[in-house]
Amino acid sequence: MIELDFNITIVGLGLIGGSFAMALKELKPKNLWAVDIDKEAIKKAENMRIIDKGYINPKIPLEKSDIVITCIYPNLTVKFIKENMDNFKAGCIITDTAGIKEKLIKDIYTCIREDIDFIGGHPMAGRESKGLAYATKNIFKDANYLITPVDGNKEENIETIEKLVRAIGFKNIVKLDPKQHDKVIAFTSHLPHIMASALINSDNRRDTKFFVAGSYKDATRVAKINSELWTELIMDNRDNTLEQIEIFEKSIETFKKAIMNNDKECLKFLFNKGSKKREELI
Amino acid sequence: MIELDFNITIVGLGLIGGSFAMALKELKPKNLWAVDIDKEAIKKAENMRIIDKGYINPKIPLEKSDIVITCIYPNLTVKFIKENMDNFKAGCIITDTAGIKEKLIKDIYTCIREDIDFIGGHPMAGRESKGLAYATKNIFKDANYLITPVDGNKEENIETIEKLVRAIGFKNIVKLDPKQHDKVIAFTSHLPHIMASALINSDNRRDTKFFVAGSYKDATRVAKINSELWTELIMDNRDNTLEQIEIFEKSIETFKKAIMNNDKECLKFLFNKGSKKREELI
Repeated sequence: MIELDFNITIVGLGLIGGSFAMALKELKPKNLWAVDIDKEAIKKAENMRIIDKGYINPKIPLEKSDIVITCIYPNLTVKFIKENMDNFKAGCIITDTAGIKEKLIKDIYTCIREDIDFIGGHPMAGRESKGLAYATKNIFKDANYLITPVDGNKEENIETIEKLVRAIGFKNIVKLDPKQHDKVIAFTSHLPHIMASALINSDNRRDTKFFVAGSYKDATRVAKINSELWTELIMDNRDNTLEQIEIFEKSIETFKKAIMNNDKECLKFLFNKGSKKREELI
Repeated sequence: MIELDFNITIVGLGLIGGSFAMALKELKPKNLWAVDIDKEAIKKAENMRIIDKGYINPKIPLEKSDIVITCIYPNLTVKFIKENMDNFKAGCIITDTAGIKEKLIKDIYTCIREDIDFIGGHPMAGRESKGLAYATKNIFKDANYLITPVDGNKEENIETIEKLVRAIGFKNIVKLDPKQHDKVIAFTSHLPHIMASALINSDNRRDTKFFVAGSYKDATRVAKINSELWTELIMDNRDNTLEQIEIFEKSIETFKKAIMNNDKECLKFLFNKGSKKREELI
């Protein structure tokens, strides 16, 4: 277990914040606090003993926190950090968990205090349901974590975040710049969510559930979505997402042409290509 | 447990045939035989005691079999039944497990003996890997089964198949005509397989696995595919599959337009629509 001699504050006790709390509590940090606008969530987290104490007023825990982890929507992340700029402890590390990075980091760096180190982070973990009730540290087990350092981030602070997320279960921790992050995430995350929703929206039957097997269930799993959050994520990453949709559309066109032309060899080739790539993914 | 006072022959000891053998053996039919061209598969199935005896020569078991279940590719199904037309027991039931129905049933009914009842069947169950080594009766648990009766099928024989597949774990057993079957399967099965393959084929990175979470993994799971089988299934269901691809393309276009127009309300509406539909699926 790593030594975690820090005061840590988690901002937002939703699915991700709650899961962070559960995982971090086991590492026994000096203090683990939380901030939320929802009294009930705070009470519940305190009763579950996954935080030491929760606050509606962020000022109280932030003034003493060495590490602040924001687990709220991207736009709220920027808003929260701006509004609390005077409340953060000198020299603290702030890291976020939002699914987009370029715009968010740019927004934060327009106004951040010089003594604060903001390091972008993205846990590649989630569930179809939102809220503390669904939180579990299991979602972090062996998952990927992306860190998006920028010029000015201190090497030792990046290392601290890296150690911390490894200690709570993440396996592959990759550093890349915010622009690259948004580009790759448009492909690996935003596109599959849109595909799942577009597939299920193209269904006009009422009895579909009697005709499905694993392929349809898996293809549509993430169509059960937090629409508020994903609209924000995708609208903040519009150009990349549109580009990826178009690349995908071209790819599906190759299948369509093979089928149209009754070209069995071509279709088999396309399936084999995908099959090989899928095996390499694991 | 249902009374299964029949001699049953399974044709093909692959993933589906092997899983059928495992599940049926527990119901203690009078005899459970298998036919395969692969000596090793027969030996393995005999050693596993999931069949009573296996045969390379189909004539021997077919002459005494009340029920024959073909678990081989669609084209081979037709070929096998035609070639063995003189070997089947008088009054027997033949049922298949192929993923397409209209063409297959039409082909079989051009040549079938009048005393044989062929009843089309489609277990909505499978895995990404093929062969007896991956067989397990668990894949049938609570899965859907489609039966595609045609004029001339005897009601009591349809009921026999229905009882049999319910007894080995299938939950929803729906009867529909072969044409309707192929239409709905193009949507719930052929399209998701093509989408999964098209998605992974549109990937040009080498390090994608470090940037994926559940959404991408699930969206591409069935891209690991038996390309031979799926090329056959889709080419035998070309028109329906092409139609479904086009309907899906139109659906993804609505997302594209919403993103292009920066229309948050529209995007949220589309996500909410899909989310509701996905909840209804379970």
